[in-house]
Amino acid sequence: MGLLGAIEAGGTKFVVAVSDHDFNIIKREAFPTLDGEKTLDQVIAFFDQYDSIDAIGIAAFGPIDIVEGSKTYGRVLDTPKRGWSGYDFLGRMKAWRDIPYFWTTDVNGAGWAEFKTGAARDVQNMVYLTVGTGIGAGIVTNGHLLSGLGHPEAGHIFLQKHPQDSYQGHCPFHGANCLEGLAAGPAIEERWNKSAKDITDGDLAWEIEAFYLAQAALDYTMILRPEKIIFGGGVPHRESLFPLIRQSFADQMSDYLAVPPLDEYIVPVENGDNAGILGCFYLCKELLETA
Amino acid sequence: MGLLGAIEAGGTKFVVAVSDHDFNIIKREAFPTLDGEKTLDQVIAFFDQYDSIDAIGIAAFGPIDIVEGSKTYGRVLDTPKRGWSGYDFLGRMKAWRDIPYFWTTDVNGAGWAEFKTGAARDVQNMVYLTVGTGIGAGIVTNGHLLSGLGHPEAGHIFLQKHPQDSYQGHCPFHGANCLEGLAAGPAIEERWNKSAKDITDGDLAWEIEAFYLAQAALDYTMILRPEKIIFGGGVPHRESLFPLIRQSFADQMSDYLAVPPLDEYIVPVENGDNAGILGCFYLCKELLETA
Repeated sequence: MGLLGAIEAGGTKFVVAVSDHDFNIIKREAFPTLDGEKTLDQVIAFFDQYDSIDAIGIAAFGPIDIVEGSKTYGRVLDTPKRGWSGYDFLGRMKAWRDIPYFWTTDVNGAGWAEFKTGAARDVQNMVYLTVGTGIGAGIVTNGHLLSGLGHPEAGHIFLQKHPQDSYQGHCPFHGANCLEGLAAGPAIEERWNKSAKDITDGDLAWEIEAFYLAQAALDYTMILRPEKIIFGGGVPHRESLFPLIRQSFADQMSDYLAVPPLDEYIVPVENGDNAGILGCFYLCKELLETA
Repeated sequence: MGLLGAIEAGGTKFVVAVSDHDFNIIKREAFPTLDGEKTLDQVIAFFDQYDSIDAIGIAAFGPIDIVEGSKTYGRVLDTPKRGWSGYDFLGRMKAWRDIPYFWTTDVNGAGWAEFKTGAARDVQNMVYLTVGTGIGAGIVTNGHLLSGLGHPEAGHIFLQKHPQDSYQGHCPFHGANCLEGLAAGPAIEERWNKSAKDITDGDLAWEIEAFYLAQAALDYTMILRPEKIIFGGGVPHRESLFPLIRQSFADQMSDYLAVPPLDEYIVPVENGDNAGILGCFYLCKELLETA
């Protein structure tokens, strides 16, 4: 038996790793994201060290095409990131070695790790939301990653504005209409003219942030009826945010629908920085098992 | 081989029917909904005419408990409807005859019929939204009805208000915050002080209605990435509403995400008044096939 490979392809940083079939990490490296071709050169140089890799899981920053059979399957879609629009990520890997690859989004990778061994390990339906530079979701329904015409874009649902918020929004497509435009890291920084890290507990900024994240959690609840909603990414590092989200969720829900106790329902990510890589290992192992 | 049974349990009207295994309807009856016990008396009197019924599909008005293994599985949950809160619908049927039952919501029943033989027959991912006295959704992802801690409550997602709408909303829980409070039939009537049927094409009322339905379609798109969004129920009988929904959807989406051509993506129900009964037959037949 050979090794499993993982590529956590972030917009600013790539992490590559190999593990045995019990997910013990043998080697792990990280390097800054360059353009598509140069970054993949480094990825391939890393895996070239190993003769026997059985499969690789790839969790890539989006938007990417994950619809099998689509003409652009395996490619990065339109992105402002230089040297990546249309780049044939999966094709380059297959040209290198024609082994099985599991190709999905970065947030699906991290979400899958939460589902398998993290905060959602005991449930079959969950939403994993990452709130950082952007906002993205990995959704599991009935034990499977949800996708239809592509991966979820659940950071772009429309929200009601907080009555005390006059910010014009940060989404280039939806301004202050959507969750990402109102609540991602750059929106917090631009609205308050300082980094989220420098905003103290108890500031109105956190109440407004919690209002938006709670409203999003409410919409996911109404549509998906998950058993667990997990927040990851940079912004939810602020632990004091969670009680505020739960309180705002209860206020907005207004007793309409029974959900689990809120401190078990709306929770932080458990796998931390390893979630992306772990998710890649789990996904490519499952790919081998079902092949 | 015996017969298939169907119970379309609406809040105002019950429809019961039997068919052969090719879904040819042999007999169909409708009667007004009374309280739980009296209505089920009539249901059972109907099916008592047939000695050999192999399975029955039940599509019931909600909220109902469809989570197998739950303490209240098979019951109607809290409802303002007299004589129904907590009623053990499925238990009463099983006590009558212990055959297989498929137990789901009215909107899941009609949605499943659209998925099998209606507007969504060629896709694997769809949202069926019924807009009438209330607003409910049947969601299919990867060929399966979506449910988690229960059936979707997608009529209660929160929406931004139309800038020209000052209506205070009709939802007893969410006022003017949620889709149902803003866009169900009773909201239209109360807002404009006349029945939707009496509002002429071209009226601002339809522009506002389309804005809300389009915004809901946008949120479902972002979260679920469906291939088809189908509108049924009384309000979408107004055909001129569809071009308005599509236009508003395009305006609000603002080119963010590629979806199918809008006149194939946002469409009316095809099975019409038989959708609920058909869905029941399909679901109980599948239940027999997978048993």
